[in-house]
Amino acid sequence: MIPHGPREDLLFTTDFLIEDVHFRRRGRSAADIGYRALARSLSDIAAMGGEPRWAMLALALPPWATRRWIDGFYEGFLELAKEYGTTLIGGDLSHTEKLIADVMVCGVAPRGQALPRSGARVGDAIYVSGELGRGRWRFVPQVALGRKLRESGAATACMDVSDGLAIDLHRMCVESGVAAELDSFRASWNRGEDYELLFTLRPGARAPRGAIRLGRIVAGEPGRITCGGREIPPVGYDHFRGS
Amino acid sequence: MIPHGPREDLLFTTDFLIEDVHFRRRGRSAADIGYRALARSLSDIAAMGGEPRWAMLALALPPWATRRWIDGFYEGFLELAKEYGTTLIGGDLSHTEKLIADVMVCGVAPRGQALPRSGARVGDAIYVSGELGRGRWRFVPQVALGRKLRESGAATACMDVSDGLAIDLHRMCVESGVAAELDSFRASWNRGEDYELLFTLRPGARAPRGAIRLGRIVAGEPGRITCGGREIPPVGYDHFRGS
Repeated sequence: MIPHGPREDLLFTTDFLIEDVHFRRRGRSAADIGYRALARSLSDIAAMGGEPRWAMLALALPPWATRRWIDGFYEGFLELAKEYGTTLIGGDLSHTEKLIADVMVCGVAPRGQALPRSGARVGDAIYVSGELGRGRWRFVPQVALGRKLRESGAATACMDVSDGLAIDLHRMCVESGVAAELDSFRASWNRGEDYELLFTLRPGARAPRGAIRLGRIVAGEPGRITCGGREIPPVGYDHFRGS
Repeated sequence: MIPHGPREDLLFTTDFLIEDVHFRRRGRSAADIGYRALARSLSDIAAMGGEPRWAMLALALPPWATRRWIDGFYEGFLELAKEYGTTLIGGDLSHTEKLIADVMVCGVAPRGQALPRSGARVGDAIYVSGELGRGRWRFVPQVALGRKLRESGAATACMDVSDGLAIDLHRMCVESGVAAELDSFRASWNRGEDYELLFTLRPGARAPRGAIRLGRIVAGEPGRITCGGREIPPVGYDHFRGS
């Protein structure tokens, strides 16, 4: 968070989308891939309760990328940018063996009000914004929900579920110095790529429409997740090993 | 340029550093590569007469990158960041076959005073900040000179020479709608990777110490460069073809 004028903070995020790491090209249109490259970064801003404003796109193109494919990529990217009031202000262009897009998004939030990952407290309820495990390719960045959570003042911590529920909840709990007890757990929730918001609400706070309660924050070893007394290991997508 | 508070504009830039495109690993220390990844983006901010403030680093690591190598990379990156008062505020991490760093830098300039590429006018003198063709790996980003040019009010256009003199001067002239006549020309000036500042000064303005006069802006087909009546083709590093 960076102060921006007297009343706002700037929020920054950057996300890679790499062929054969984050996606396989087969069966995906160029516009689908352009959409997703931006959507991942918009989701990060949403998770902070921010309003996305400006984007930069660094694109390294493989030999197979034709002019038509590149046009399609920008079409998917810019359509989503327009929908979210985000202006593409610059970027870089290079070439490589596999497609690499790195998308930076800069957004704003009212001073001191961006949602942190580290604010979960014992007794808070744990929610997700929608069903996990579906992994829709053209997911909807939850900017409106993030704004609502920020404005309500009831959310204590928030992040998006990009790598899988267990690993992402583990990270939130480590940063907050707390543990979590889930009401139930399914292995499919660890698949990642959902980009739903994972958030905690103060005790007694009303959940937004459509949100699903997963459990509650408890005292314990920071980052430990349990369900019915059984420990849930913090596995999910690993940025180094790719699984 | 993005308004930032009542008196400043935000400046954004992003630059790839890709193994076997922008550099070969052989004979380079990890710290050298980390230094250069950031230096390229700082040079862009310098060319706008801006003050770099915040950086994000998206890093995709190949199998050969050991923990020790990665530590070395960050050491080179962070040492330069510290020297230039730039804070690393975030990033992304992934894996790939060849090393890829994408570095975003956000800087500031007094409102409306950032140096443009498009302001060169007929009669202006053309300068570079230092000798071209040397291509030093650990080049010095010309932030102090960029600031001086911005404060002087004498510079009409500015950019850094990253791809080679002819192609970069051609771009400046196209954006400014003017042509250029050089006093002399050497093929080695087209090698690129110099990261000196290329700038134009109003007629009669005093050049900063160490700057080298290359010629002057003339009327003509936008982007056309000549030397003694002979046309200099706008060749240099091409982002698509790599040569």
